[in-house]
Amino acid sequence: MFREQLARDAARIQNQFDLVLGGLDDLDVTQAMAYTTQGGKRLRGFLVLESARLHDVAEDQAIWPATGIEALHAYSLVHDDLPCMDDDDLRRGKPTIHMKWDQATAVLAGDALQTLAFELCTRPEVGVAEVRAGLALTLAQASGAQGMVLGQALDIAAESAAEPLNLDEITRLQAGKTGALIEWSACAGARLAQADTTPLRQYAQALGLAFQIADDILDVEGDAQKAGKRLQKDADAGKATFVSLLGLDAAKLRAADLIEQGCAALETYGSRADTLKEAARFVIARDS
Amino acid sequence: MFREQLARDAARIQNQFDLVLGGLDDLDVTQAMAYTTQGGKRLRGFLVLESARLHDVAEDQAIWPATGIEALHAYSLVHDDLPCMDDDDLRRGKPTIHMKWDQATAVLAGDALQTLAFELCTRPEVGVAEVRAGLALTLAQASGAQGMVLGQALDIAAESAAEPLNLDEITRLQAGKTGALIEWSACAGARLAQADTTPLRQYAQALGLAFQIADDILDVEGDAQKAGKRLQKDADAGKATFVSLLGLDAAKLRAADLIEQGCAALETYGSRADTLKEAARFVIARDS
Repeated sequence: MFREQLARDAARIQNQFDLVLGGLDDLDVTQAMAYTTQGGKRLRGFLVLESARLHDVAEDQAIWPATGIEALHAYSLVHDDLPCMDDDDLRRGKPTIHMKWDQATAVLAGDALQTLAFELCTRPEVGVAEVRAGLALTLAQASGAQGMVLGQALDIAAESAAEPLNLDEITRLQAGKTGALIEWSACAGARLAQADTTPLRQYAQALGLAFQIADDILDVEGDAQKAGKRLQKDADAGKATFVSLLGLDAAKLRAADLIEQGCAALETYGSRADTLKEAARFVIARDS
Repeated sequence: MFREQLARDAARIQNQFDLVLGGLDDLDVTQAMAYTTQGGKRLRGFLVLESARLHDVAEDQAIWPATGIEALHAYSLVHDDLPCMDDDDLRRGKPTIHMKWDQATAVLAGDALQTLAFELCTRPEVGVAEVRAGLALTLAQASGAQGMVLGQALDIAAESAAEPLNLDEITRLQAGKTGALIEWSACAGARLAQADTTPLRQYAQALGLAFQIADDILDVEGDAQKAGKRLQKDADAGKATFVSLLGLDAAKLRAADLIEQGCAALETYGSRADTLKEAARFVIARDS
């Protein structure tokens, strides 16, 4: 059920990117935008679309912020991969933008993808103005210097710190770096319906943390071929991770506990939330 | 009148940046955000505040998008100055972020300043939801791959083109690169008041083009000390500019004509638009 829905949603989001990016001038930067928004799990976009279904919001409305959050995620990956940041040559098994084109194209394509995210959330098709303004404001809060960029900056600061981060510090770092956008995605359906976001927020906070723990586990145990990126980066860099702090077995238990907590928060929706619960269980079982 | 108002508005915008950025974690990236949003002419922010005054919009509302457009402008400068882009060591007479900190900090600070721009335009203090959603959507359209980034990408493409750009091509390039944000700024006051943007749009289109012609003139005739940045860059790079295409005297005449056209578009406002008219005349007389 979940895997089929994820595949359908990924295809729908790809169509939307084709539509939106197809209207742009044909230049290196727009080619790079299209190139980098192909593929990926589309988990964030799925969370927008599935939480919208949960609130009977039409897919024609929800597809815009679903594509928007994938544009924002893509921007963060493109800039993260730059030589001055993580310096990665591969992403999803393909050369990164600065390898295929150059660094200037990577900077500009990432910049334009961030802008596109805000455009897609505020287009008239999304719904009433309250919804559009609210989606844009919360997206900015989740992705800026109090959200994702804060997490990235804490990550960079940790590299030159005298001591490795402790569990509280790494939890805060990850709440920004990956948690805030996952939370935004899961809450988007409730926002589109102008409904209470509390259950989805609790679900997403547990899911986001479990997602990062699973990433750390994958970094140690995973197969670089399947993951489509370099692994063991954190261990090689001597960085603290949930695995280095908790140990592998305890990290797995913690992730599983979080998933059960997250699913419990959705009880109010009954069986209609089954696909979201399946999604949560997938997050800690994935191999890429 | 205009110069005093510009100075007052610049101080008001600086206060707002201090308020907004003062609440962030103290990290390299947030220090760099504060550093790079100090100084500058604040012409875009002034256009927001002055067009708001023209429509009797309260300054407490207009200050948010005025600070937002300056955040967006600052992001574009920080990324433009990167080694892989224009590779500039000085901006407003001070070391650029990648010189004072490093490239990663410059990429992240620019990213977060773009995000901040959208946050400031959609905060509840700005006004009703229609206004906030409209400001964010039009800002995205003006700054993304159909606006500012398009202009930057055309600029990069021109460097490796077989022939220099002609007048139509360079006009389109500049309409994106600098014109779109100037237009957004001047129209913001009408948007805040939910009034017709046509007169301000006509004014701003003429002003934006004149602004760029004046920049090209300054690049040839200016004093690097006063400008606070390296000059003669375009001539050194063999790039087409309004000056290389029109000649210096005709470029000056064209800029002056545009300013008169732009001022004529404001006749509907009577003497209330005098400060905006003065601003337009300042743009082609400035030395930095």
